[in-house]
Amino acid sequence: MSNSPNESLTPKARIVLYWMDLAGVAVFAISGALAAMQSRLDLFGVLVLAAITAIGGGTLRDLLLGRHPIFWMRDTRYIKVIALTAMLTALAASGWGQVLQSGNGALVIADTLGLALFALCGAEIAEEAGKPRLVVVLLGTITASGGGVLRDLLTGQVPLLLRRDIYASAAIGGIAAYLLLRALGLPRQVAFIAGMLMVVALRLAALHFGWQLPAPQLSQ
Amino acid sequence: MSNSPNESLTPKARIVLYWMDLAGVAVFAISGALAAMQSRLDLFGVLVLAAITAIGGGTLRDLLLGRHPIFWMRDTRYIKVIALTAMLTALAASGWGQVLQSGNGALVIADTLGLALFALCGAEIAEEAGKPRLVVVLLGTITASGGGVLRDLLTGQVPLLLRRDIYASAAIGGIAAYLLLRALGLPRQVAFIAGMLMVVALRLAALHFGWQLPAPQLSQ
Amino acid sequence: MSNSPNESLTPKARIVLYWMDLAGVAVFAISGALAAMQSRLDLFGVLVLAAITAIGGGTLRDLLLGRHPIFWMRDTRYIKVIALTAMLTALAASGWGQVLQSGNGALVIADTLGLALFALCGAEIAEEAGKPRLVVVLLGTITASGGGVLRDLLTGQVPLLLRRDIYASAAIGGIAAYLLLRALGLPRQVAFIAGMLMVVALRLAALHFGWQLPAPQLSQ
Repeated sequence: MSNSPNESLTPKARIVLYWMDLAGVAVFAISGALAAMQSRLDLFGVLVLAAITAIGGGTLRDLLLGRHPIFWMRDTRYIKVIALTAMLTALAASGWGQVLQSGNGALVIADTLGLALFALCGAEIAEEAGKPRLVVVLLGTITASGGGVLRDLLTGQVPLLLRRDIYASAAIGGIAAYLLLRALGLPRQVAFIAGMLMVVALRLAALHFGWQLPAPQLSQ
Repeated sequence: MSNSPNESLTPKARIVLYWMDLAGVAVFAISGALAAMQSRLDLFGVLVLAAITAIGGGTLRDLLLGRHPIFWMRDTRYIKVIALTAMLTALAASGWGQVLQSGNGALVIADTLGLALFALCGAEIAEEAGKPRLVVVLLGTITASGGGVLRDLLTGQVPLLLRRDIYASAAIGGIAAYLLLRALGLPRQVAFIAGMLMVVALRLAALHFGWQLPAPQLSQ
Repeated sequence: MSNSPNESLTPKARIVLYWMDLAGVAVFAISGALAAMQSRLDLFGVLVLAAITAIGGGTLRDLLLGRHPIFWMRDTRYIKVIALTAMLTALAASGWGQVLQSGNGALVIADTLGLALFALCGAEIAEEAGKPRLVVVLLGTITASGGGVLRDLLTGQVPLLLRRDIYASAAIGGIAAYLLLRALGLPRQVAFIAGMLMVVALRLAALHFGWQLPAPQLSQ
């Protein structure tokens, strides 16, 4: 359960969180495997990109916090889930290509749930490490979006989330909501769920209404 | 004061160094924000690139040294300075675009001061950690130029400083001068200032006279 | 000897391993220096790329394991070998360009030996740190191929080893063979050499017979 925060949660909540965590890893692995296939990587490249997308953000967080062992070294289930998911994605892609294309509704919703979960889990881990609030927001955002940035770098693209789209910003909004509710005295689990809902709401609303952040222009 | 070396300095020198450090962070944040706008990133991308340019090198240094907490986790003023600088740069860019273009004299001089300061601070931190001199040179250079390399990677460019220009080489020259003066028995603060002046002199002379490192060619 | 595993080996085996390690570093430094010259980097870029290719993988391994000091900070001979090799490569390239071109037999064989050695050394270091077998395979592979991935990223290319070629896969095969022989009760040194031979055999056979991993396709 090393990718989830492990204090102040009931045993039941921990188990729910753990399985959600593995589900989030699987969804991000699909996204990485699809990006690898779009870049015509071979099977090894598909596995590497699936892994980096799924656990790259959490690995960056653990490195920055000096939190050893890194979560996937203690619990190898993460790697097993990624390998299995990537292989199934590669197998399915020839038949299911269109089903799996990004833009597909089910994949977008699953990705949004993964984003929300990773953001809040990352934030709580930073909080438990005693970091200031600003650092909690940053580390939660890095946990949620670092893997996608590494995926884009490895396939030779300027990271999508830096260019447009309310994605990391939704993570920031959700973590801020979590910290606000905590400061108002709400119990951790309530604030956690509210934060996740905020991420999901911001992300889906942005997709639905086409919200984008402004891109400041250099005058000529 | 965690991005500055903290031993063997008078309290007054520490305070001067701290404020210079924040000024260096601000200048590098401007450089990152401008690069983000040139790559047409959105506001989130501008903030991320400003942060990575400004504190990426110091973060790499701290990770390589196993120096936790990373300096910007202990003192959040670094992040606040970056966020403020990036926002102001984005706001100003529509009106001040031409003023802020790289190549502009004031920005180049400020960037050179940042380079010199980060190189010497990084070197001293490595020295205080008891590293051999060769490693001191490497970690000082990584502190000074690592952020720029990460900025170029994220905007999809082969890092500028690997291609041409006396930039990292000026940092190496200044750190070498510092270590030489220390070995000759000069007090740390004198050697520190002399090292910084050497970086500035090398960089400005290279710009003025068009000095470049040779680029070895593969014969066909 | 900090880049080599240091337990359960006879003093003589340690010394052999140490010199092979330095030889592996030199070969990878040549590969990095050649890639830098092909990308028309300057002399500083040639040195940086040589270093990142030669010690990038081992550095990633040490960071992920939280193993400080990083191996090249304790024993500066690694950096000295890299600097010397890179300078000689740059000097030689104008005259020896065609001799040094990748594809050249001697360079390929040396690179294959470096790959084998780094994979097995990385795996043993992870094993000594008490990591599960799956993590041992991953860290051995990262040690052997991480430097090449960073080299390709810095020269603006989608990493070669993700696209085609039995390269990292040969490392995985050799580490797996090593772990299998260890599980069967063979002494560490025998399993180590057998693992290295397996990497070399897989890599050379793949080159000779043109073996490639399948690249799964997205259906349109």
